[in-house]
Amino acid sequence: MYRVSTTADQKLLSAVELSEMDGQKVTVHGMIQRIRRLGWGAFIVLRRHDGLLQCVIGRDGNEELIDGLAEEYSVQITGLVKGAKIKDKSINPRSVEIQVEEVKVISVPAEHTPVDLSKKILDLHIDTNLDLRPLSLRHPVERARLKISEAFARAFAEFLRIQGFTEIRTPKIGVAGAEGGANIFTIDYFGRPAYLAQSPQFYKQMGVGIFERVFEVGPVFRAEPHQTSRHINEYTSLDFEMGFLNDHTEVMQMETALLKYCFEHIQETCAPELALLEADVPVIQDDFPVVTLAEAHEIAGSVTGKDYSAEPDLEPEEERALCTYSLENWDSDFVFVTHFPTEKRPFYTKDDPDNPGTTLSFDLLFRGLEITTGGQRINDYQEQIDKMESMGLNPDDFSSYLQAHKYGLPPHGGLAIGLERITARLLGVDNIRLTTMFPRDIKRLTP
Amino acid sequence: MYRVSTTADQKLLSAVELSEMDGQKVTVHGMIQRIRRLGWGAFIVLRRHDGLLQCVIGRDGNEELIDGLAEEYSVQITGLVKGAKIKDKSINPRSVEIQVEEVKVISVPAEHTPVDLSKKILDLHIDTNLDLRPLSLRHPVERARLKISEAFARAFAEFLRIQGFTEIRTPKIGVAGAEGGANIFTIDYFGRPAYLAQSPQFYKQMGVGIFERVFEVGPVFRAEPHQTSRHINEYTSLDFEMGFLNDHTEVMQMETALLKYCFEHIQETCAPELALLEADVPVIQDDFPVVTLAEAHEIAGSVTGKDYSAEPDLEPEEERALCTYSLENWDSDFVFVTHFPTEKRPFYTKDDPDNPGTTLSFDLLFRGLEITTGGQRINDYQEQIDKMESMGLNPDDFSSYLQAHKYGLPPHGGLAIGLERITARLLGVDNIRLTTMFPRDIKRLTP
Repeated sequence: MYRVSTTADQKLLSAVELSEMDGQKVTVHGMIQRIRRLGWGAFIVLRRHDGLLQCVIGRDGNEELIDGLAEEYSVQITGLVKGAKIKDKSINPRSVEIQVEEVKVISVPAEHTPVDLSKKILDLHIDTNLDLRPLSLRHPVERARLKISEAFARAFAEFLRIQGFTEIRTPKIGVAGAEGGANIFTIDYFGRPAYLAQSPQFYKQMGVGIFERVFEVGPVFRAEPHQTSRHINEYTSLDFEMGFLNDHTEVMQMETALLKYCFEHIQETCAPELALLEADVPVIQDDFPVVTLAEAHEIAGSVTGKDYSAEPDLEPEEERALCTYSLENWDSDFVFVTHFPTEKRPFYTKDDPDNPGTTLSFDLLFRGLEITTGGQRINDYQEQIDKMESMGLNPDDFSSYLQAHKYGLPPHGGLAIGLERITARLLGVDNIRLTTMFPRDIKRLTP
Repeated sequence: MYRVSTTADQKLLSAVELSEMDGQKVTVHGMIQRIRRLGWGAFIVLRRHDGLLQCVIGRDGNEELIDGLAEEYSVQITGLVKGAKIKDKSINPRSVEIQVEEVKVISVPAEHTPVDLSKKILDLHIDTNLDLRPLSLRHPVERARLKISEAFARAFAEFLRIQGFTEIRTPKIGVAGAEGGANIFTIDYFGRPAYLAQSPQFYKQMGVGIFERVFEVGPVFRAEPHQTSRHINEYTSLDFEMGFLNDHTEVMQMETALLKYCFEHIQETCAPELALLEADVPVIQDDFPVVTLAEAHEIAGSVTGKDYSAEPDLEPEEERALCTYSLENWDSDFVFVTHFPTEKRPFYTKDDPDNPGTTLSFDLLFRGLEITTGGQRINDYQEQIDKMESMGLNPDDFSSYLQAHKYGLPPHGGLAIGLERITARLLGVDNIRLTTMFPRDIKRLTP
């Protein structure tokens, strides 16, 4: 028997800490992102946990070492931290570099990488990028996108905790989908059929009866047979649900404050990544514009010259037109659309008592794309039974879900934000596959 | 068009805030957990987002109101905060109560609950508890368990971020399992077979090449056909993986500091829940004892009088015996067991060069149960190819995973903690189903 200590320090020096250590000797490790050999010596750029570190080594007495190193070697470097002014935005920290005294090689790749990770832009066909994902993600631009996505999800949770929400974890395997039977993956569950969750909808509504305010960050699965730049079949859904509402506008209210918090958090914690990606973080105004679907049709028509008044939903073309209009006329990157028709929204959506045929529901559009769907839900048991029956559903199929309503639920509502979609719009990435590590689509199951 | 403000305040008064508002008038809302009618009036206990609030109402002029209220009504109460000394540990805050001035009924259940949520202990058969989960989770004991589990997972992420880890989200649908072909759920993925992830193992190893240190909190799926108190088929796995190791003991080191942080976080943030559950949070010593599997067999044998020396793994009986021994002799609720044999560990496990036939792997036992499996992984490409072949695997089946090794990976290792298992051991809950909201087992797919 021996013992391991609970107090040993295994922290890594951060980029910020290094930038404040001018003149000190340090030992750091990392993988060689790139190496540039010059007459007097070489620049070695190390990939570390939170950025790329520039190291400088003189040629005298180091010829063999310099010639022996290559990209993707894992090394340990000891040297002196020295002030520097580095222009390259992929480097972090940019105010210091390491004057190398010693390099120890820790591991060596079996082959050279088939892609050049030292290039400023990883100019690959998307299929190549995705096929080589364990490598392509080592590029600073790809890493930065993941860091932004991570920061958004972290801020989402932080904000909601401050607001009194409890984080829940709900099953991804179940018997029926919240959104109905279409586009749902089937599993062989010990010989009987089960389904992958399309959303945590039922569970977060049950959660309102338990904790009043709940949120979940987790994967959802949609068997949509579309191969488009804005669909993936497994994505991260940021969900919340809150009780004791007057109406759906209180959910929208919560979302506006949430987004403000998230974008401010990203600006505070991801400055190097935002600079590298040249991301245009929206300034969150004091308020967000809200229009009904009928108004949205009119406005979009005024931009495109078409007549959308008979459309039961928002077409992608309309989403873009409305966002263009919103930015130009209301100075907002965001616009809420409310009052979608009853037949286009799921059975749990509350109808608007003042506008028959429409619902107390909303979408939030951001830079041309729907990033959120939400609304007030039905909390009254009989009202939910009646609506199910009017939509041809059998309430008996939903008996465990309906326990929540039967035994009491306050008025409530909530929403879901697609993490990949909002990241893509924030960063101006055309294909949402590039905002996630290992995307799944109708053709892709690997890596 | 109208606008919703980004700055409106929708915060809820917390239990702590209420406890500091003696003498102030407040309006709060909640669901009635229980109501006790007495000669002079009634106690109404409200279920709120972070605790149960005691409200007191006099009978004079309120007879009709008091008689009309019942459990699970959603109400809004206005009244005066008044100092109190409440003994009932299910109440939070216990230092104040509300002297009711006005009660507004917001929603009414369709039926009375079939279980008595006012009882101190929810004394139900486990199947009944789970069948009625949307209700049974409204009981303070059940809520408290979920709050502890939530706090543990939150602290896990917080600690690892401080240590320079990046949070990743990896796909749950894929082509092959990290742990091999057994016990894996099959999905119909657009007409071809796919599988649910048993662990994020491959992806977190790839993540080491990208971010050096990564973690994930997410669901994993195991088609184990066991109906025991310590198995569920979908659970939350807390995973981390770290690069630039000397050996597996650095992973163990990181885990000891992590557990210390998590338990301290729970004690700081969940005092009311711990008191209600009468939970015995382990004091984390300055170090954890470590034994090899061979030593573990000997020690367990000394407790039970049996001979385990030929066992290739730890039996549940041995886990319990070793933990008993550890507590009595080493004053530790935890004990690490290392050096499991090569044939009992997955192909990515690094063999111990000094002890052929054994691996640089470990389990962590806590109060009689294995809660963690971890170890050092193979980082060298050829070593991994050779081990796969020696185990009868075809490296071509793992080509996208092996990109990480082929193009360079530092020495690395990591672990996985089962959230439900550690919560169960911490709280002394016999069946892990009761530490999660909606468990899945071989017989259960609902609610």
